[in-house]
Amino acid sequence: MDDIQDRLSASELASFFNELADVAGRIAVTHFRSSVDFERKQDLTPVTIADRAIEMELRRLIGARFPDHGILGEEMGSTAGDRYTWYLDPIDGTKSFISGMPLFGTLVALADEKDGSVAAGMINMPALAERWYGTRQGTTFNGKQAKVSRTTRLEDAQIYTSSPDFFTPGDWARYDALSQKAMFRRFGGDCYQYGLLASGHCDLVVETSLKSFDFMALIPVVEGAGGIVRDWQGQPLSPDSDGRVIAAANDSLLEQALAILNQ
Amino acid sequence: MDDIQDRLSASELASFFNELADVAGRIAVTHFRSSVDFERKQDLTPVTIADRAIEMELRRLIGARFPDHGILGEEMGSTAGDRYTWYLDPIDGTKSFISGMPLFGTLVALADEKDGSVAAGMINMPALAERWYGTRQGTTFNGKQAKVSRTTRLEDAQIYTSSPDFFTPGDWARYDALSQKAMFRRFGGDCYQYGLLASGHCDLVVETSLKSFDFMALIPVVEGAGGIVRDWQGQPLSPDSDGRVIAAANDSLLEQALAILNQ
Repeated sequence: MDDIQDRLSASELASFFNELADVAGRIAVTHFRSSVDFERKQDLTPVTIADRAIEMELRRLIGARFPDHGILGEEMGSTAGDRYTWYLDPIDGTKSFISGMPLFGTLVALADEKDGSVAAGMINMPALAERWYGTRQGTTFNGKQAKVSRTTRLEDAQIYTSSPDFFTPGDWARYDALSQKAMFRRFGGDCYQYGLLASGHCDLVVETSLKSFDFMALIPVVEGAGGIVRDWQGQPLSPDSDGRVIAAANDSLLEQALAILNQ
Repeated sequence: MDDIQDRLSASELASFFNELADVAGRIAVTHFRSSVDFERKQDLTPVTIADRAIEMELRRLIGARFPDHGILGEEMGSTAGDRYTWYLDPIDGTKSFISGMPLFGTLVALADEKDGSVAAGMINMPALAERWYGTRQGTTFNGKQAKVSRTTRLEDAQIYTSSPDFFTPGDWARYDALSQKAMFRRFGGDCYQYGLLASGHCDLVVETSLKSFDFMALIPVVEGAGGIVRDWQGQPLSPDSDGRVIAAANDSLLEQALAILNQ
């Protein structure tokens, strides 16, 4: 199997990711806030329709361009492939999507199963017109270079997590101990939090219960911007990680945070 | 003292609110995400500068147009006036503003101290280009009529609050009991949550620790869209309410929620 870089240039790969994002974003925005005029509550149709329609379209585009690649998506399971696998989360932040909150995004990652690395990842926020794309060459935010913050002391750090409801009581106690030592903690954001971190706006994101299609795209976005993504043991993530994720602007913050999570 | 409606038409008042929102939004957006390139953490300057600059400018505009009105602002305290008082929160959602999250807004309310009513209120979200304006004649979202949802059963309701950190342990237990009975709960949103409710996207918002300049603007926005805003005893809010606020899409949801909050 060829290396993906032998088959297409960095800009061709970026263009393909942008094409996927544009297509996914158009579908998502069509369904977002679309069900206000009728009784929507028993009926999660808008998000279900949008999730499936996006994943189907992304699978079609990827299959046409890279027929030998595998695909793992949130909605439609796993399609076996060769060396490369695409990880797709058509709508990350389902509750946001359902409740009219623009903090939902589409996640796409291209992983090289040969060495476990993620060659490229994207966080696309269609309702905000914000897009992060990360590779080993760096991360861009709407086409411009993104850089993490230079905050190195935990007490100066702004820390995010999506919701206390995603933690077990034991994990919550660990997160609570950590976040109480930060400058402040804020809730609610899903994949967007990692974009904010990549752009230097917040300094730490700590979560649990993430699936591979939730976190694979975040790795190159955060690390291409100079940050670091690990599990709560400080190990690099792999598709079969336990879902506990920490993203930090730098090693110093990561070490301080891990020390408290594991004390 | 004249009734404000004798002095200017509904559209003139709406125009003035729009002028305030435009001015506040320009200042806020100038400072938003402006401090990424330097060590911002010890230094809350961006939000402090933006808060004060907005309030100063709003006070100048209001004072020029309505020199006999009172003004109560978050940053600069209270200026006595006659029958009418303006309530100003230049940047609601400070943590969002500081951490690059676009969920911050400017709140403006015009209250009639004669009968305790709020003649007009506005939630302006400059980073999202979203604006709600409410009066007794109705609520608009970006100029179009806004309507609350028709969800009437608590188990179908989407409930929002900003953060568990804003509750006392006792109030949290009450909120937890309530929100566990809803379809789902989501965290993080500040004033934006009430806009989502006014536009029918979520159904309940329950908070504590709000100040008058936080909640006065929300009342006409939510109620002009057909919803209802009360304290946790079910009483209408007044500037000296205790800061516990519940906003509901309708009386049925309000009653179900109050029954659980007070059981």
